[in-house]
Amino acid sequence: MQYPAPIAKLINSFTKLPGIGSKTAARLAFYVLDMPERDVLEFAQNLINVKRELTYCSVCGNITDSDPCPICQDPGRSHKEILVVEDARDVMSMERMQEYNGLYHVLHGVLSPMEGTGPDDLNIASLIKRLEDPTIEEVIIATNATAEGEATAMYLARLIKPAGIKVTRLAHGLAVGSDIEYADEMTLYRAIEGRREL
Amino acid sequence: MQYPAPIAKLINSFTKLPGIGSKTAARLAFYVLDMPERDVLEFAQNLINVKRELTYCSVCGNITDSDPCPICQDPGRSHKEILVVEDARDVMSMERMQEYNGLYHVLHGVLSPMEGTGPDDLNIASLIKRLEDPTIEEVIIATNATAEGEATAMYLARLIKPAGIKVTRLAHGLAVGSDIEYADEMTLYRAIEGRREL
Repeated sequence: MQYPAPIAKLINSFTKLPGIGSKTAARLAFYVLDMPERDVLEFAQNLINVKRELTYCSVCGNITDSDPCPICQDPGRSHKEILVVEDARDVMSMERMQEYNGLYHVLHGVLSPMEGTGPDDLNIASLIKRLEDPTIEEVIIATNATAEGEATAMYLARLIKPAGIKVTRLAHGLAVGSDIEYADEMTLYRAIEGRREL
Repeated sequence: MQYPAPIAKLINSFTKLPGIGSKTAARLAFYVLDMPERDVLEFAQNLINVKRELTYCSVCGNITDSDPCPICQDPGRSHKEILVVEDARDVMSMERMQEYNGLYHVLHGVLSPMEGTGPDDLNIASLIKRLEDPTIEEVIIATNATAEGEATAMYLARLIKPAGIKVTRLAHGLAVGSDIEYADEMTLYRAIEGRREL
């Protein structure tokens, strides 16, 4: 005996999400069965709305419900710096800090020969186009500190520097509040390498 | 800056699911954004269908798309035994074994004074009603081997035995393929207590 068709189909939909295996999917599907109908209808509507109402900003590639996005259109922000991130969630992390007041550019991934992601698969052409604007003085590369993130940063730096624009990279080192004892070798190396005079 | 409204709402819907915190919910919501529209619409429809098309069997309490459920209606199954489980997923586990050919009864929970779940909150009254049928010879209690599961089993046994119906409980002991070295004390105790002559 199999699960009744409606629940089997919902389990199947849940397993398409990242990090959700068949056991978790079954648990979630059964939970939905017991949820108030109002919450389930809202959930279904929210899924559809995310696909229908959100789009990527044609300027920076961030997700937005208006194009260009509120950040690109904000006259209160500095238009001199562009901070380049891998993914729209990174923009949210930066904004939560409430210290950066420039613009963003979302690559939607990183260079990865293993997965066949080359420069043309990323949102790079539109970044180069934005740099034609003489207002821009600095590009801050904030890709993750992974092998792919580093390679992407290097690639962008080589591409942008010849245009005479300053290219910087986020500092790497010990996380604030972390213990040296538990830091990995790469992080310690970066912390030593990037040491600053007091 | 907050997430755009549609994504914030979807994140909120995901956090209502068990075991999904705000970080995971954000990851899932962003993943949905990149899923093919067809898959998302199907997901939304599956959510709604689970609520609309599924119901609980009025006889045994199992989930079903027809009432009574296919198991209760199956003339090929033995109507002499009723196996009592906590939850509809347990029925699926038993069916996967393909060895049990009797009927089921789903309690939808266990007695739990801590959570305020008493006998009236469980699907017990309808079980007692089913036992009026003289065909039934045995009730097999298959609640989990937790404190609440044991207490529920004990409660049901005391309730049913006076009617002259045989009440049994699933055997507890070492899992097949497991190592004695890693078994907990309770499991070992149950394995010794329930030892069988060879």
